[in-house]
Amino acid sequence: MMIKTTLFAAAMGLLLGAPLQAAGTATVGQSPWGPQDELGALNLMTEASRAAILSRVSGGEAYDLSVEYFIGMPGWHAAGDPRYQMWMTHTPRGTVKSDPMHLGEEMNAHVSYTGSAISMYAHTGTHIDALNHFGLNGEIYNGFRADDHLGDTGWNVTGAETIPPIIARGVLIDVAGAKDLEMLPDNYRITRADLEETLAAQEVTLQKGDVVLIRTGRMAAYEDADAFMNAAPGLGMEAAAFLAEESGAMIVGADNLSFEAFPSEIEGNYVPVHTYLLAQQGVPIMELVYLEELAAQDIHEFAFIGGSLKLRGADAAPMRPIALPIK
Amino acid sequence: MMIKTTLFAAAMGLLLGAPLQAAGTATVGQSPWGPQDELGALNLMTEASRAAILSRVSGGEAYDLSVEYFIGMPGWHAAGDPRYQMWMTHTPRGTVKSDPMHLGEEMNAHVSYTGSAISMYAHTGTHIDALNHFGLNGEIYNGFRADDHLGDTGWNVTGAETIPPIIARGVLIDVAGAKDLEMLPDNYRITRADLEETLAAQEVTLQKGDVVLIRTGRMAAYEDADAFMNAAPGLGMEAAAFLAEESGAMIVGADNLSFEAFPSEIEGNYVPVHTYLLAQQGVPIMELVYLEELAAQDIHEFAFIGGSLKLRGADAAPMRPIALPIK
Amino acid sequence: MMIKTTLFAAAMGLLLGAPLQAAGTATVGQSPWGPQDELGALNLMTEASRAAILSRVSGGEAYDLSVEYFIGMPGWHAAGDPRYQMWMTHTPRGTVKSDPMHLGEEMNAHVSYTGSAISMYAHTGTHIDALNHFGLNGEIYNGFRADDHLGDTGWNVTGAETIPPIIARGVLIDVAGAKDLEMLPDNYRITRADLEETLAAQEVTLQKGDVVLIRTGRMAAYEDADAFMNAAPGLGMEAAAFLAEESGAMIVGADNLSFEAFPSEIEGNYVPVHTYLLAQQGVPIMELVYLEELAAQDIHEFAFIGGSLKLRGADAAPMRPIALPIK
Amino acid sequence: MMIKTTLFAAAMGLLLGAPLQAAGTATVGQSPWGPQDELGALNLMTEASRAAILSRVSGGEAYDLSVEYFIGMPGWHAAGDPRYQMWMTHTPRGTVKSDPMHLGEEMNAHVSYTGSAISMYAHTGTHIDALNHFGLNGEIYNGFRADDHLGDTGWNVTGAETIPPIIARGVLIDVAGAKDLEMLPDNYRITRADLEETLAAQEVTLQKGDVVLIRTGRMAAYEDADAFMNAAPGLGMEAAAFLAEESGAMIVGADNLSFEAFPSEIEGNYVPVHTYLLAQQGVPIMELVYLEELAAQDIHEFAFIGGSLKLRGADAAPMRPIALPIK
Repeated sequence: MMIKTTLFAAAMGLLLGAPLQAAGTATVGQSPWGPQDELGALNLMTEASRAAILSRVSGGEAYDLSVEYFIGMPGWHAAGDPRYQMWMTHTPRGTVKSDPMHLGEEMNAHVSYTGSAISMYAHTGTHIDALNHFGLNGEIYNGFRADDHLGDTGWNVTGAETIPPIIARGVLIDVAGAKDLEMLPDNYRITRADLEETLAAQEVTLQKGDVVLIRTGRMAAYEDADAFMNAAPGLGMEAAAFLAEESGAMIVGADNLSFEAFPSEIEGNYVPVHTYLLAQQGVPIMELVYLEELAAQDIHEFAFIGGSLKLRGADAAPMRPIALPIK
Repeated sequence: MMIKTTLFAAAMGLLLGAPLQAAGTATVGQSPWGPQDELGALNLMTEASRAAILSRVSGGEAYDLSVEYFIGMPGWHAAGDPRYQMWMTHTPRGTVKSDPMHLGEEMNAHVSYTGSAISMYAHTGTHIDALNHFGLNGEIYNGFRADDHLGDTGWNVTGAETIPPIIARGVLIDVAGAKDLEMLPDNYRITRADLEETLAAQEVTLQKGDVVLIRTGRMAAYEDADAFMNAAPGLGMEAAAFLAEESGAMIVGADNLSFEAFPSEIEGNYVPVHTYLLAQQGVPIMELVYLEELAAQDIHEFAFIGGSLKLRGADAAPMRPIALPIK
Repeated sequence: MMIKTTLFAAAMGLLLGAPLQAAGTATVGQSPWGPQDELGALNLMTEASRAAILSRVSGGEAYDLSVEYFIGMPGWHAAGDPRYQMWMTHTPRGTVKSDPMHLGEEMNAHVSYTGSAISMYAHTGTHIDALNHFGLNGEIYNGFRADDHLGDTGWNVTGAETIPPIIARGVLIDVAGAKDLEMLPDNYRITRADLEETLAAQEVTLQKGDVVLIRTGRMAAYEDADAFMNAAPGLGMEAAAFLAEESGAMIVGADNLSFEAFPSEIEGNYVPVHTYLLAQQGVPIMELVYLEELAAQDIHEFAFIGGSLKLRGADAAPMRPIALPIK
Repeated sequence: MMIKTTLFAAAMGLLLGAPLQAAGTATVGQSPWGPQDELGALNLMTEASRAAILSRVSGGEAYDLSVEYFIGMPGWHAAGDPRYQMWMTHTPRGTVKSDPMHLGEEMNAHVSYTGSAISMYAHTGTHIDALNHFGLNGEIYNGFRADDHLGDTGWNVTGAETIPPIIARGVLIDVAGAKDLEMLPDNYRITRADLEETLAAQEVTLQKGDVVLIRTGRMAAYEDADAFMNAAPGLGMEAAAFLAEESGAMIVGADNLSFEAFPSEIEGNYVPVHTYLLAQQGVPIMELVYLEELAAQDIHEFAFIGGSLKLRGADAAPMRPIALPIK
């Protein structure tokens, strides 16, 4: 494997047997699209690239790539973040008694009002990480410093509101399927070879600007949050480099939550695949992508269409993308 | 105007000069798709209908139909529902001090973690109302009773998770534009004639199964929540009936928040357009749809693609739809 | 043991070997203070009772009976309720960037603003349960029906706002201490005999109107939420009856979270001690009371002073009570 | 008036006609109790001071000094903080359908469970500000720097959990009452003379270590949040200095929300009374204290007893204090 950038070479120090001083020395990447750029790899999407994939859409099937949100759903809680909550603010019977708009009992009994509210960590359910989610040394991708750009309600650069609707070629790399496994083993770290072998078996070649979605099979445990979260398989650094640097992926995603495998391969960095992709390469990450139906139908190449919520300043946003079969 | 259904005729009693006893006598509609149906008009979407519109997509432009979410954004607060909130759960400097994962100062200083969380009323920003949002007399569309189907975390029928990804012909009815107004006047109630005249001026004809989006021009005030919410123009009952019953709209939406104009035309019902569309006709409503760019480009017919978050049991869900030009 | 009321006798059916049909037949109690009464045993507190205990206060020591609130603290999450959350809404550095009041960078840099927000299940930390927290067959204590009195924002009777500030004789029953244990064993069910023996050892006699606080020793595990919550020791039905019916306790509390021991002694009722005390006897329950210092000082009788937050309509409220030594 | 400290003299520059360069030059105070002190004026409370006031308690009346919490209650929202919310997580009917603990319909129908949750800005309802709430130039009282002590979940010094239960002499200064007004006029700025005249009329003298509570009469508007918040009367700088520096108040409070009058008297500081009291003098502030009954009974001197919730790291905490008449 030939790793192209020095950024990554430094980050990979530990894995490759380089001296320990390499650990923790990684720094954020500079965007080839200029010092003001907030999009990173999303710049690969153009009117032409969208036109290219849209012109290949075929038929009327649509695959839903999103999971459901419900109380007790899997989530990343190790750092104390709020779990998904949903509660009723108005119910047909309740409004008759609480009458929040002073309409009277008769009106409330006739007009049956249901309202609800939600709260969640931004990285909940099927979602995309904004580039500011993980940085290095107080900076995020393209050198924006937290001290200059982060306020109490988020970043004034690279916030989720800057992520455009995504229309791109999507590629499913069904690693679990290629290995004929329902689910990759606990803590399994997907290698570059796994990706290449799966692509070869699928007879699909990656192209620059793809949305690349990795299937670990973990989704089978989705309704059991503990089983889903515990010791999930995920990507390794080499595999990430293969996608971001060699293959030119615009977005990478997976059906698990952590995306990367733990424990970390890099000393001094507990989430090196995240910092590598987001902060060094400018490649957004999608997590909890529902890939089961695509896999069942052996659909490995498709039009990916999805828009994440425009949460101003946020470091991630939920989305409900779809896959459309192409010719 | 010839109103076709008795449901609507009863509901319209007051407006048409019928006796007052008609007020409050409306009842929910029964789905023509059967007693178990939870989708209502969404049944109009089929593989064939999706194929038809997708085959017309042309080029690579994509119009973002969603607004941004931010603290202080417009919202429906008259009944005490929570306003949009977004807060930081992790910041590069903060993690160094709070160290939520017990990683130590050095690790936190190197890996710059940003996390945030959100909370909101389900009907916030660009969103779609599920059919359970408004019912009549303790029932929702198709006769599902709250007493049978509503728990503390929502409905076990017609919840937002049942709404499929939407791929359909979209039609913009730019009422404000047709009247050469930046924004319809405060409290202006859009009539059937307004819709018909606008469609005629746009040279567009509605088709069964369309996503019909009405532009009032109110979006110009979006960054000023009070101005946006106060006395918004909206749809009247006649206009709603024209869309749902005569035209066969699958979804109706607008760029305002209340969708309908206030005060109500129907005695005993403070949101008759909502109950008419959702509970009597089974037609979901979209609100806060961003239509400014479509209007500016005179794009009145397009492929509408959007997926709302699959919030289990919920009465609405945020979404970020797009419009694709068609040939 | 002589159980006085038929209510309790029925509820205890299973335990006493009575036929199974007794299970689930319990009904709520009627207040001896009349059909409108919302206070239950809290009626035992009078100006005279307060004067009596206040006149015995001695010296200037004050014992803090409250635990700390922090992310990750123990809580009752089995039913999906939100965990304690606390987050920053304003920080000295953050306001300089986000400038939420449009004051400008210089002003924000000079005036260093810190703000935060919290959210929690009402039964979090040291708190008192209102009588509406658990009822039977759709009713709560004194026969108030949920269908008549419960709206979307709580009960219009017996809400936490109706609980007066508590000033009463407090009695610590240090069951763990009397057994010379740091902590009662997992799932240990405290018996009437345990209470009587401990009181005898402490040379304290209960009086009508007391706030009775049971020490299990579980507080030693407070900083480890899982250890605190798992298989906690708690009160049994007989012991509860001894306190409520024989001893005339006004409030009962403990240093654990569930108060009662699990599994339930009563078939068809998963929290029989709660329904017995709250719904049948009208006796509020306090949980997570910090009793370690009182126990360490062998203070078993004291003036209890505490006021719970007046959360309108709520079924519980946090509080921070104190104990004052008496002569 | 003789102002004692140079800190205050500098802060008062603008008011006193001093050159503009004085504006914004204030710095935080150093605690006379040493460089590690986190309590400031709360150090004035001792076992002896508590014993002194407790020994004067007389009779059995207790005055509730707390307001109710409800959706729509007054609150400080100018900076986007979350409004008070309360919602039901479990209801007797709802649990039958949602069955969150998998108990089955029969069990849920028998055991009628009510649960609720709350969220709020920490400065909601009757509450006390911790010393970290407002600082100057990135520091809080006693020179603790935000960069050293503030994490994503609050301050590791002077957090609300460090505030002890308060037992102290309380003094009501009923300014509105002394002026024979129901409520002080909008934006009225209470002067030192107002305080002195009221104290003289009440025949009460302040003592070091008092909890001093100012009545503006604004509480009469409590149920109308807009009326309550709009243009509230409040304290001026001179009056604050009289309380903190000349009179040695341990805590100062009022029945309004902003405590101080706006607009600010000090150029470059929008909340100078807050920064003066909290950051320069180390005196906590209480707001939204319910003083109506004390005023109605002409009780101007009493035992103040109250404990704020121990919210770890927080900048404020709700509390429900009481006043006990003294001899």
